[in-house]
Amino acid sequence: MKSLKYLTSVLAICSATGALANADLQSQIDNPAQWAIQTGDYENQRYSELAQINADNVGDMQVAWTFSTGVLRGHEGSPLVVGDVMYVHTPFPNTVYALDLTQEGKIIWKYEPKQDPNVIPVMCCDTVNRGVAYADGKIFLHQADTTVVALDANTGEALWSVKNGDPSKGETNTATVMPVKDKVIVGISGGEFGVRGSVTAYNMEDGSLAWRAYSMGPDSDILFDPDTTTHLGQPVGADSGTNTWEGDQWMIGGGTTWGWYSYDAEADLIYYGTGNPSTWNPAQRPGDNRWSMTIMARDPDDGMAKWVYQMTPHDEWDYDGINEMILTDQEIDGAIRPLLTHFDRNGLAYTLDRVTGELILAEKFDPAVNWTTGVDMDPNSETYGRPAVVAAYSTEQNGEDVNSTGICPAALGSKDQQPASYSPKTELFYVPTNHVCMDYEPFRVSYTAGQPYVGATLAMYPAPDSHGGMGNFIAWDNIAGEIKWSIPEQFSVWSGALATAGDVVFYGTLEGYLKAVSADTGEELYRFKTPSGIIGNVMTYEQAGKQYVAVLSGVGGWAGIGLAAGLTNPNDGLGAVGGYSALSDYTALGGQLTVFTLPD
Amino acid sequence: MKSLKYLTSVLAICSATGALANADLQSQIDNPAQWAIQTGDYENQRYSELAQINADNVGDMQVAWTFSTGVLRGHEGSPLVVGDVMYVHTPFPNTVYALDLTQEGKIIWKYEPKQDPNVIPVMCCDTVNRGVAYADGKIFLHQADTTVVALDANTGEALWSVKNGDPSKGETNTATVMPVKDKVIVGISGGEFGVRGSVTAYNMEDGSLAWRAYSMGPDSDILFDPDTTTHLGQPVGADSGTNTWEGDQWMIGGGTTWGWYSYDAEADLIYYGTGNPSTWNPAQRPGDNRWSMTIMARDPDDGMAKWVYQMTPHDEWDYDGINEMILTDQEIDGAIRPLLTHFDRNGLAYTLDRVTGELILAEKFDPAVNWTTGVDMDPNSETYGRPAVVAAYSTEQNGEDVNSTGICPAALGSKDQQPASYSPKTELFYVPTNHVCMDYEPFRVSYTAGQPYVGATLAMYPAPDSHGGMGNFIAWDNIAGEIKWSIPEQFSVWSGALATAGDVVFYGTLEGYLKAVSADTGEELYRFKTPSGIIGNVMTYEQAGKQYVAVLSGVGGWAGIGLAAGLTNPNDGLGAVGGYSALSDYTALGGQLTVFTLPD
Ligand SMILES: O=C(O)c1cc(C(=O)O)c2c(n1)C(=O)C(=O)c1cc(C(=O)O)[nH]c1-2
Ligand SMILES: O=C(O)c1cc(C(=O)O)c2c(n1)C(=O)C(=O)c1cc(C(=O)O)[nH]c1-2
Repeated sequence: MKSLKYLTSVLAICSATGALANADLQSQIDNPAQWAIQTGDYENQRYSELAQINADNVGDMQVAWTFSTGVLRGHEGSPLVVGDVMYVHTPFPNTVYALDLTQEGKIIWKYEPKQDPNVIPVMCCDTVNRGVAYADGKIFLHQADTTVVALDANTGEALWSVKNGDPSKGETNTATVMPVKDKVIVGISGGEFGVRGSVTAYNMEDGSLAWRAYSMGPDSDILFDPDTTTHLGQPVGADSGTNTWEGDQWMIGGGTTWGWYSYDAEADLIYYGTGNPSTWNPAQRPGDNRWSMTIMARDPDDGMAKWVYQMTPHDEWDYDGINEMILTDQEIDGAIRPLLTHFDRNGLAYTLDRVTGELILAEKFDPAVNWTTGVDMDPNSETYGRPAVVAAYSTEQNGEDVNSTGICPAALGSKDQQPASYSPKTELFYVPTNHVCMDYEPFRVSYTAGQPYVGATLAMYPAPDSHGGMGNFIAWDNIAGEIKWSIPEQFSVWSGALATAGDVVFYGTLEGYLKAVSADTGEELYRFKTPSGIIGNVMTYEQAGKQYVAVLSGVGGWAGIGLAAGLTNPNDGLGAVGGYSALSDYTALGGQLTVFTLPD
Repeated sequence: MKSLKYLTSVLAICSATGALANADLQSQIDNPAQWAIQTGDYENQRYSELAQINADNVGDMQVAWTFSTGVLRGHEGSPLVVGDVMYVHTPFPNTVYALDLTQEGKIIWKYEPKQDPNVIPVMCCDTVNRGVAYADGKIFLHQADTTVVALDANTGEALWSVKNGDPSKGETNTATVMPVKDKVIVGISGGEFGVRGSVTAYNMEDGSLAWRAYSMGPDSDILFDPDTTTHLGQPVGADSGTNTWEGDQWMIGGGTTWGWYSYDAEADLIYYGTGNPSTWNPAQRPGDNRWSMTIMARDPDDGMAKWVYQMTPHDEWDYDGINEMILTDQEIDGAIRPLLTHFDRNGLAYTLDRVTGELILAEKFDPAVNWTTGVDMDPNSETYGRPAVVAAYSTEQNGEDVNSTGICPAALGSKDQQPASYSPKTELFYVPTNHVCMDYEPFRVSYTAGQPYVGATLAMYPAPDSHGGMGNFIAWDNIAGEIKWSIPEQFSVWSGALATAGDVVFYGTLEGYLKAVSADTGEELYRFKTPSGIIGNVMTYEQAGKQYVAVLSGVGGWAGIGLAAGLTNPNDGLGAVGGYSALSDYTALGGQLTVFTLPD
């Protein structure tokens, strides 16, 4: 009875969101011919109802047309499709193209921001950008230099722009924008520069500031109500954003917000996670370092936090908690529950009740994970909700200037920003994962605005005693807490997944393959070698009655930083260069869109 | 009886070349599964015997795999295929990749020369390179900075390198290298910087200099024998390379050699053309300016010139004579003649006897051509072999600082470097052409080494009163002197053509389309939008029993210089920016290889 249950829950979400979400955007999202938001929908399911391309015929898929973006380095995110227009963005300098789908991608307009290239060296993990957003006839671009700009979707004309941060202090942007109601929600990057993370809402109409919620600091900065904001069911109490920090360290505390955002219109809550506390040397910041590494549920109108959950108190490994929150309505013990599923960098997959913040499940989604024995699930325990740290892999306990070896996962996590997908038909999550471990040696650093504030030397390598590769593409059951199937990959899967009603799941590989696999079994049904390594997210749309699948190629991101920035020293690129050096045997820099379809 | 005649002539050429040409390279060329030389063969026919992809099934063609070169700007030339290895080059910085065709392009080795970027501003017409050469287990690369390097084809290791010119004087390179016997023949660019052109032969074994032949200067510099070197059947006489110049102007006389080279093993002659005399202001260089704008036939062993033919004496329009010389054996008046066919920038297609240098035919291959009424074909005339110049379009007669308008073709000619193809089956030449006219205003300049030495302001636009586009792709009969069919194109066709035994002709467009047309009728059979504008040359090969067609995308070259170099002032890019400004509505910079094949 899965399909009936699924239908009911889809209807429930759609009718609700229609009422409360941005009405224009919601109606564009509801049309499966389009891809109107980076995340596929507000729920971040990245699931498409299109089924013309399906498990039976995907093997016949062909390239329909292609488009070079004119920019090299890492291409994250995906195009949007609204009407007959496709919006394609690039990494720095963040060019945006509007392409006419009725004319194989003829360029309708091009927007080329002028940005100071000095922003490049303060971007930790390549010059990526996770894409533009659409709402109310506007395209929203959040540039590397933190300029948020609203463009007329028809002409590309800039309607307003606002500066969200200051690159001279290490504040940059790589994330997309989430339009909700009459606002756009934006994050900030810079955890490796001691930036204090925040989420900001600007009014869609004119770019004026609506609210800003920091990740740490006084209650008035973090928009927490000591009495009504809860953590694991309990009010957080006063000063929760400062009282787990020593002195003023919270002011340079990290907890940046460079990941994905979701929205539940019925609960009227937005969800996102915060990044690592600064520095990477845990000895320099005693305490739990709240609210870094935290899932946040906030009211989009005023930013007030309803509930929060800190996954990795006092991080010792750079396990930023920013990965996407996927919203689903699924049955548990006979009742349909409003769930939030999150695959964290720390290697644990969390299932929570997204309305109450109740922790339902926390299980390893990569068997290699060894830094923790698991999360205390006993609500009556002192350590309820906390992961038990294995001493041997505690970089804090091993101490400064000591190289802790064999920690799994590596700093880039069992999964990084590359978003998973959910199929309501199978009730499975399709997760691009990393299968990488590390050595980690913390050292003392001092803070200078705009300078790296890292404090650890890293080396990364494939998970030992496994298949030798650095990634897996897995199907995850978020209620059983189990891997259903797992496809070994030579490199981390740094591309976002797409599941469709055609029972196919798509993802890209760092070597540059677009792959289509069976949603049920993971069996490979199709592969195609695109021009460059894929770290973009696969999307689909329909145009003139034909379904298309599209993906950006362009190797880079943290995993591909060696190629992207021309680094060869193994410890460079925050430790990623060595582990991924073999990538240069497979691919070179690029920046291309490849669009697939079935033969006529 | 075309096919029988054709077979005979192919056999004649093959057996002859087998004896005298570089034996290894000739045997690689003779294997139609390979593409062992940029020009397809020594004859520059760019014809393939492969027929698995043919006029009946080319419409089903699909993209097999793709490869990003990691470099932007104009990608001219094509990959080579020798054995199971494909060699791909890029524009500046002239990276070379060896790709494993048994593993969808896995990178076997990569050669990345370190070049001073100061060479970029002294390249007149984008940072293009027309590809590497192969012979005797070596790959030959002629870099932008004029370094000629021999690489071990198996490992990419540099075996020797030699500097052919000096970029600080404006000497650069864009051309491929032609291996002949135990030498490699190389040219030089820089006609817009007052470089005195030359052709140089280096010994393949160690890179030592064998000979150098300048385009102008004393007989000992130009390797002319006053008594045996002929022009239109007559000995050239003493000092022919200086006595049509005023004073020392020949020392900065241009006549560069950046085009294509062919070789006839039976006649043991190499053929190439020389470029425009410097400056573009004709008033500054009275006289015929020999031997700029000249077809040269030289002995590859010592460089001595056997015969020459100056097509455009005293150039007034920048009609460089460097386009390829296509060698064919065809019947004229009942006898098989050794022919040389050349489509010149000046809009005239020439058919000559390649052994004697006899001028057989000179006809306009674009009806728009208006600067000349035609070539005097009367051997007894004073002006035998000279084009009659129309006064209204003579920038010399109109004078300095006068804008001569409506001249057809524009400076980039009715055809530029983009090479034509010849099918022995149809006995037709398939020619990518420009359909562009210009205004040209010469002005006085003074020479400074390494500085532009141009002396004219240009504007370019589509040929008036025609189809509105800037190009045609035509089929040419070189014996009748007639266009057989013509396909109008919106932009100049800046890609090289490929004809195959499958009765298909391939070419690329500046918008980025690869097109396949019927060799007989020109009817379009297939088109595919590649990532970026195509100025590369289409090639084909067979691997594991399957035929593939491949082409480099990457808009640029002179026509695409606006996009490539980010210029927007219409008169910039030596006048090309304005005419081609609409290109930015279709494509953006790229650098990709697209490989096509039939479905399994
Ligand atoms: O702490 C931060 O502010 C921050 C920012 C970013 C970013 O903006 O891309 C990354 C990270 N951290 C990070 O830890 C990380 O693993 C990472 C991977 C990537 C990527 O796009 O491949 N970005 C980032
Ligand atoms: O005079 C010269 O030395 C010289 C060099 C080159 C070159 O090397 O690319 C071009 C030209 N001239 C030229 O006139 C021209 O039209 C041209 C087109 C192109 C091209 O690759 O698109 N190169 C050149």
